[in-house]
Amino acid sequence: MNHDGSQATDTSCVFCEIVAGRVSSDKVVEDDQTLAFMDIDPGSDGHLLVIPKRHSTDLLDVPPEDLVATTLAAQRIATAMYAELDAEGVNVLNCCGAAAWQTVFHFHLHVIPRYRDKGKDRMELPYEPGVPSDPGARARYAQILAAAL
Amino acid sequence: MNHDGSQATDTSCVFCEIVAGRVSSDKVVEDDQTLAFMDIDPGSDGHLLVIPKRHSTDLLDVPPEDLVATTLAAQRIATAMYAELDAEGVNVLNCCGAAAWQTVFHFHLHVIPRYRDKGKDRMELPYEPGVPSDPGARARYAQILAAAL
Repeated sequence: MNHDGSQATDTSCVFCEIVAGRVSSDKVVEDDQTLAFMDIDPGSDGHLLVIPKRHSTDLLDVPPEDLVATTLAAQRIATAMYAELDAEGVNVLNCCGAAAWQTVFHFHLHVIPRYRDKGKDRMELPYEPGVPSDPGARARYAQILAAAL
Repeated sequence: MNHDGSQATDTSCVFCEIVAGRVSSDKVVEDDQTLAFMDIDPGSDGHLLVIPKRHSTDLLDVPPEDLVATTLAAQRIATAMYAELDAEGVNVLNCCGAAAWQTVFHFHLHVIPRYRDKGKDRMELPYEPGVPSDPGARARYAQILAAAL
């Protein structure tokens, strides 16, 4: 069991099944704590996922040591994407919760190499910049969060 | 100077100027290593940025200790967004390189609370899922990266 009562592996979780080798994947690299494998539904050529091997649901739930290991693995992979795939940029994205596009409920980071060649890159900006926000609203949100942190 | 020869602060960098207090921002929380402040061009209500106070350009360049501190701050902030802003999800996004939408070249994580209420949330999925990728291409990318990692 994890600290939060969740199980370290979960046979109903497809990413736990990939870790266990019972579901196949295109594995990229692994260590004691993490595994990276190709996303089957990529936003660009070379898009992959990095996960902690131990099950946790999402960003709120993942133990700090697994979050750190997964993040440092993503950094190493991003560097390799520039060197080996001629990536011109990289996005690292976590989706926490269905309202934030999470579809597999095992914490994961998307590591997405980016190219100016649109034949290799289907990514679109997730929001249109340049819509000025209300300074009063910004200050209010800052105060609400600051009081809790 | 940082490990890579970049300077720890850079007066031409707007985020270094925010850290130094010479450019104003709506600060949310800070500690010795990190600072969080509201994004002036938000994708949703409450969208903020977390940065290491020490200057580094991007994900490739940021020292692991600053990357870890920034990531753990983002996790704490995400938890507060659920509790205090009634967020229904959170995205954490890093943009590394102009080809990946980076516009300020001081490493930063976007922490974006998500809501089903579209009045508070202008985010759109950055790529259309369901375009099947070529399994041969996936395997090839996996092999190229695996050989370098």
